[in-house]
Amino acid sequence: MAMRYTSFLFLLGLILPLLYFSTPLKKANGENDADIVRKIYDVALSESECYENLRYLATRIGARLSGSPQAAAAVEWGRQTLEKLDIDSTYLQPCMVPHWVRGPKEQARIISSHIGFQEVNVCALGNSVGTDKWGLSAPVVEIKTIDELAKKDKKAVAGKIVFLNAAMDSKLVNTFGAYSGCVKNRYEGPSTAAKMGAVAFIMRSLASNEDEWPHTGNSAYEEGVTKIPAAAIATRDATLLSGLLGKDPNLRFYLNMQCELLPDAPSHNVIGEIKGSMYPNEVIVVGGHLDSWDNGQGAHDDGAGIVHSIEVLHLFKKLGIKPKRTVRCVLFMNEENGTRGAEAYAKAAAASGEKCILAIESDAGGFSPRGFGIDTADSLLTARRLARLKEWQSLFEAYNLFDFRAGFGGVDIAPLKTQGVTCMGLSPDPQRYFDHHHTPHDTFDQVNKRELELGAAAMATVTYLISEYGW
Amino acid sequence: MAMRYTSFLFLLGLILPLLYFSTPLKKANGENDADIVRKIYDVALSESECYENLRYLATRIGARLSGSPQAAAAVEWGRQTLEKLDIDSTYLQPCMVPHWVRGPKEQARIISSHIGFQEVNVCALGNSVGTDKWGLSAPVVEIKTIDELAKKDKKAVAGKIVFLNAAMDSKLVNTFGAYSGCVKNRYEGPSTAAKMGAVAFIMRSLASNEDEWPHTGNSAYEEGVTKIPAAAIATRDATLLSGLLGKDPNLRFYLNMQCELLPDAPSHNVIGEIKGSMYPNEVIVVGGHLDSWDNGQGAHDDGAGIVHSIEVLHLFKKLGIKPKRTVRCVLFMNEENGTRGAEAYAKAAAASGEKCILAIESDAGGFSPRGFGIDTADSLLTARRLARLKEWQSLFEAYNLFDFRAGFGGVDIAPLKTQGVTCMGLSPDPQRYFDHHHTPHDTFDQVNKRELELGAAAMATVTYLISEYGW
Repeated sequence: MAMRYTSFLFLLGLILPLLYFSTPLKKANGENDADIVRKIYDVALSESECYENLRYLATRIGARLSGSPQAAAAVEWGRQTLEKLDIDSTYLQPCMVPHWVRGPKEQARIISSHIGFQEVNVCALGNSVGTDKWGLSAPVVEIKTIDELAKKDKKAVAGKIVFLNAAMDSKLVNTFGAYSGCVKNRYEGPSTAAKMGAVAFIMRSLASNEDEWPHTGNSAYEEGVTKIPAAAIATRDATLLSGLLGKDPNLRFYLNMQCELLPDAPSHNVIGEIKGSMYPNEVIVVGGHLDSWDNGQGAHDDGAGIVHSIEVLHLFKKLGIKPKRTVRCVLFMNEENGTRGAEAYAKAAAASGEKCILAIESDAGGFSPRGFGIDTADSLLTARRLARLKEWQSLFEAYNLFDFRAGFGGVDIAPLKTQGVTCMGLSPDPQRYFDHHHTPHDTFDQVNKRELELGAAAMATVTYLISEYGW
Repeated sequence: MAMRYTSFLFLLGLILPLLYFSTPLKKANGENDADIVRKIYDVALSESECYENLRYLATRIGARLSGSPQAAAAVEWGRQTLEKLDIDSTYLQPCMVPHWVRGPKEQARIISSHIGFQEVNVCALGNSVGTDKWGLSAPVVEIKTIDELAKKDKKAVAGKIVFLNAAMDSKLVNTFGAYSGCVKNRYEGPSTAAKMGAVAFIMRSLASNEDEWPHTGNSAYEEGVTKIPAAAIATRDATLLSGLLGKDPNLRFYLNMQCELLPDAPSHNVIGEIKGSMYPNEVIVVGGHLDSWDNGQGAHDDGAGIVHSIEVLHLFKKLGIKPKRTVRCVLFMNEENGTRGAEAYAKAAAASGEKCILAIESDAGGFSPRGFGIDTADSLLTARRLARLKEWQSLFEAYNLFDFRAGFGGVDIAPLKTQGVTCMGLSPDPQRYFDHHHTPHDTFDQVNKRELELGAAAMATVTYLISEYGW
C-alpha cells in the first residue's frame, strides 16, 4: 500500500506540471492570453506614445538619410526615447554608412519643337553621380523593359538618354508584388544603359498611381561601368514624355543634378531591450529602420516601423508584462542605401552565438494592419510556424488580423533569416504605400493615429505570445 | 439487353446533367469562376470609371443634402451616368424628402472670466431649429451620459445649455461599434435636454480622434417637446470647454445658428439594371446613398458607395457578363436625414412581389475592402449564408477579402431585410472613416483610387457569384 501511495504521489508529481503547462492560457493572476491581448490593444488605442513619437521623428527631425546630421539626430532621439522607457538596457551599435548627398539643385526639362519646353519633376536615384554644373542635354530613347534595351543597336543608344518607361502593374492587389516586379529596373537600369553608351538614365517613378511626385530609391553601378547620372521622373511626366516622343522623336531632355557620394560616415543602430525573466538568452527582435530618404519626412517609410517597435517595449512596460524571453527593439540604420546597420547587427548576433527565436520587422507603412508575412530559410519551417500561429487565430481575428501567410520579413532582418531565425513582417494594408514611398509626400499627416496604434498592438501581441510560449 | 441499354441511357440522362451542374466552376467558354473574378479585378484596377465618377460627384456637384439643388443635380448625374452604360433600363423612383437647410451663419463662442472669449467650431445637427437672429447665450451644464442628465435636478438644468461630452470609445477596434454606442446621444439628447428646461443642446462631435472639425449628423425631436437648438462642437473644443468649466463653472456659451426645416421637397431614387438572362424575376440590388451632408463633399459618405454600385454594372458590361439573375443598381435618396428613398424602394418592391435574393450596400467609405457583413432577419439564415460564402473563401482571400461575419447590411437596405431579403454590407477598413464622417473633411482627395476600385471589384465579385448560382 505504502508503495502504491508513493507511486501515486510520483505520478501526481509528474502529472501536475503537465496539467499546468498544458493550460498555458491561464495565468497565475487569473488572466488568460485573451485578457492580456485585450489590455495590449486597450492601452495601444488610448495611451500609446507611438503617434506623438512619430510626430517628433517625422516633423521635428524629418528626412534622415544615412550620414546626414538628421540621421545623427534620429540616433540620439532613438536612444533618449528608449532610455525614457526605463528598460533593462539601451545601447548603440556602431556601423559605417554610405554618405550620399542630393546636393542643392535638381532640374529636368523636355525641349521639343512640338511643345517648346516643359519642366519635369525629377529626382536623382540614390547613389547616382551628378551631372556637371551646367547639366546635360541629349535626345531620348524610350524603352519598356531592360531586356528591350539590351537588344537595341548600340549606335541607337550611344550619346542618348535612356528612358525606361515601365509602370508598376496596377492589376496586382498586393502593391508590394508590383513593386518587386519593377525594382530591378532601378538597380540594373543605369549600368545597362551605360554599357550601351548612354549619357544618362531616367526612369518612370515606381508609384501605384499617376502622380506628380518623383519617387527616389537606391540604385547601383556595376563594377567597371561608366557611372552615368540616374534619375526618376514623376509618373505623369513619364506619360507626357512618352506621348511627346511620339510627336517629336528628336526632342531633347535636359537634366541637371549635383548629387555626389562622400566618404563613408560613422553611424549606429539603436538598441533597447527587456531581459527575459526565464530564458534571457532567447531573443525576440522587433525593429524597423531609422534612416529614410532625404525628400520627405520618412513617416510611413519607416518612421512607422520605428515607433511601432519602440511601442512594443512601451506597452510591455506600461502593462507590467515581464517577458519570459528577451525582447529587443532594434532601430536599424541605413536600410535605404546600404543595409550596413543590418549587416552589423547580424554579424554581432552571429559572433555572440545568442539564440534569436523570432525577428519581426515593420517596414511596410503605418497603415491598418492586416496580418503578418512569415519568412524562414526553409518552407517546411514556414509551414510549421504558420500552423503554430493558426492556433491563436481567433485571438488575432478579434483584432482584424486575418492574413498570415508565407511572405517577406524585412530587409533589415533578412541577414538573420540566413542564420536560421524565423522572420515576420507586419502586413499593413498595402494600397496607399506606393503613393507616398520615397517622395516628398511621405509625411506625418498621411499617417492615421489609430492605424498606427493598431500596428504597434499587433506586433506587441505576437511578441507577447512567442515570448511566453516560444514556438 | 435492349431494356438494359435503355436503362443505361436513362441513367446517363440522369447523370450527365448532374455532372454538368456539379462542376459549376467551369463555363462553356472554358473560363472558371476564378478566371472571371480575376478579370473583374483586372478591369477594376485598370479601366474602371469609379474614381473619375467620384471626382465629378464629389468635386463638381459636391455636398448634396436632400432637397438641395445639388441633390437634384446628383439625381440627374446618376441618371446620365447609368444611361451611358447602355444597360437594359434606367429610371427614377419618386419620393418626397425632408428639406432642412443650415442657413447662412453658424457661430459659437465660450465667454469666460478665465480666458476672455474663445471661438468654437460648431455645426447644427440635422433637423435642428435655429436660434433667433442674435443667437443665445447661457451657462453650461456638462454631462457624460444622457442617463446622467435625466437624474439631474431640473432646476440645475433649466435655462442652461446642456453639453453632452461623451467620446467615442477609442478602444474598440471596429469604429462603427464605437459610433453605434454614441449615436443615440445625438438622437435623444436634444429632447431629453428640452424636457429638463434647457435652452440648447450641444454635444462633443462623434469622431475617432480629437480634431478641429464639428461632425454633423441627424437628430430628432420627440413629439410635443419644445424644439431647442442642437449642435455639435469639435472634439478639441469639447475638451477645451470641459477644461474651462473646471476653471470657471459660470462661463457662458454663445450659439448662433440660422438653420430651419422647410416643407418636404420632391426627389428620387435613381435605378439602373441589367435583366437576368435566366431568372429575370430574381433580383440582386447593389446600392449606396446619393444624398450627403451639406458640409463636405460626401466623398466617403457615400459618394464611394454610389460609384461602387454603378461600377458593378460597368464591370459587367465591360466584361460582357450576362448575369443569370437581374442586377439592379439603386442610388438611394435621403439616407442621412429621413431614409425616404429606402422606404419608397422597399414599398415598391413589396407591392411588385418580386423576389430579391440579395441586397448589397456600400455605405462605410471608400477604404480598402476587408470583407462583408451578412445581415438577415434570422440568425440561422445568416449562418447558412456565411457557410455558402465560405465555399468561395479561397477565391475571396486571393483578393484580400478575409472578413465575412454577421453584421450590418446598410440603412437603405434594412427595410428589405424585414421582407426576408439577405442583406450584405461592404466592410472597408474602418479606422479612418470617423475622421471624415459628416465633416468638411469628407473630400475627394481623402479617397485612394485603388482602395475605391477594390471596393467595386469586391461588390462585383459577390454579385457575379450569387447572380450565377443563387444561394
